[in-house]
Amino acid sequence: MINFIDSENKNISRDLEKILLAKDEQVDNLHINGLKIIQNKKMFMFGIDAVLLTAFAKVKKNDLIVDLCSGNGIIPLLLSENQCKKIIGLEIQSGSANLAIRSVKLNHLEDKVQIINDDIKNVFKYFEAQSVNVVTCNPPYLKNNSAVKNLVDCLSIARHEILCNIDDVLKSASYLLKPNGRLYLIHKPERIFEIYQCSVNYNLEIKRLRFIQPQIEKKATMVLLEFVKCANPGLVIESPLIVYKSKGEYSEEVLEVYKKC
Amino acid sequence: MINFIDSENKNISRDLEKILLAKDEQVDNLHINGLKIIQNKKMFMFGIDAVLLTAFAKVKKNDLIVDLCSGNGIIPLLLSENQCKKIIGLEIQSGSANLAIRSVKLNHLEDKVQIINDDIKNVFKYFEAQSVNVVTCNPPYLKNNSAVKNLVDCLSIARHEILCNIDDVLKSASYLLKPNGRLYLIHKPERIFEIYQCSVNYNLEIKRLRFIQPQIEKKATMVLLEFVKCANPGLVIESPLIVYKSKGEYSEEVLEVYKKC
Repeated sequence: MINFIDSENKNISRDLEKILLAKDEQVDNLHINGLKIIQNKKMFMFGIDAVLLTAFAKVKKNDLIVDLCSGNGIIPLLLSENQCKKIIGLEIQSGSANLAIRSVKLNHLEDKVQIINDDIKNVFKYFEAQSVNVVTCNPPYLKNNSAVKNLVDCLSIARHEILCNIDDVLKSASYLLKPNGRLYLIHKPERIFEIYQCSVNYNLEIKRLRFIQPQIEKKATMVLLEFVKCANPGLVIESPLIVYKSKGEYSEEVLEVYKKC
Repeated sequence: MINFIDSENKNISRDLEKILLAKDEQVDNLHINGLKIIQNKKMFMFGIDAVLLTAFAKVKKNDLIVDLCSGNGIIPLLLSENQCKKIIGLEIQSGSANLAIRSVKLNHLEDKVQIINDDIKNVFKYFEAQSVNVVTCNPPYLKNNSAVKNLVDCLSIARHEILCNIDDVLKSASYLLKPNGRLYLIHKPERIFEIYQCSVNYNLEIKRLRFIQPQIEKKATMVLLEFVKCANPGLVIESPLIVYKSKGEYSEEVLEVYKKC
């Protein structure tokens, strides 16, 4: 498998020297205009889903973007390469938000990227209603299973709907977005109808669906969704995104996505 | 393009000689165990969608099957090759039903296939509630556009929701199906959320979706749906069915489907 991220712990850059890396933390090179990200091996580390969501999102010049459930800030970092105005990431977990804030500093992106450590349900504290062009979100995919409730840790919170669910995401996105503003979401395919049912309450019209399959003959394991606020109905099911052309070998499209990011 | 249907007007079989072919009618060989179908060039002639729906449907031994919106009977004819008990096709248009009835006779399938010329909304006249194992339906895909209302002809009725809509199809299917009975439907991808919303009212759970794309890089143009009556939630998005591997050349899978039909 091609490794897109090189751990650079051995050869720490000058920028990084100014920032204290805590235990279990590492700096990974994103191979995109020198972008770097601080990750913690014991916390949620970004995966291909964040990268594919960023590539799926249509961002225009001067767009104001809010990334909900921002984690360690991978999506704001990747989006910073666009000609958008500003990207603000909201992350409820202080540990993750702290990593993201330090990654912003590490990349000298303080003017373009801001991280807020708060619940996405509190968007009204920071933003006027209908003030944002684009919302992105790579939320917890899994339903809150009562079996894990007693084991609430940062990984469970990132994966399970413990602190926010799909209704919270769509409600906050709908509050933020201007009419015709766009929400880009990645989720599990088995939940598309539940997501649709929820979107109806928030005037978010699903306009594009793109399923992600590990290989061409496999069932879908993720889905990319584009919602447009206050739009007329009109859904397109795009050709699926195939991740691997053979075991361990990324497809041409995924290689292209990584190049473009 | 490979032609799966040979017109046999020139060499009319003995069976056919007993049946009067009206103007504009032809007998087409389905190339499946000698099955033939009578079609009328001025009426709705079956397409690949009926063939793909039949291949998608899971039919078990001794299943009782009802095909709604049966048209010229293509689906009951194709399904007759299965070890099911009986297939009953309902078709509202007398012209199409008449073709289907004659095709059943032509193929000596009177013991296995029956055609009823009535509205699918009248299923309760012919069937007990919850008495059927499988329902199939290749319904009119297009919304009833008031612009065509004054031009109601047999083609418009087959294509537009003039005499029955998706709600009618799901309502009748739900009436017919036993608990755990299966509905197989083919429809337009842009209508999946509307179909889902409607299915909720009739206790029909969407369990499998398979999008159909003309080519691998094209958007989906049709979708195959499997509903199970009274089932628990649990949706699978299967890998898409690709019709052509290159322009005019069917994919291996479609060629296989035609072989198996």
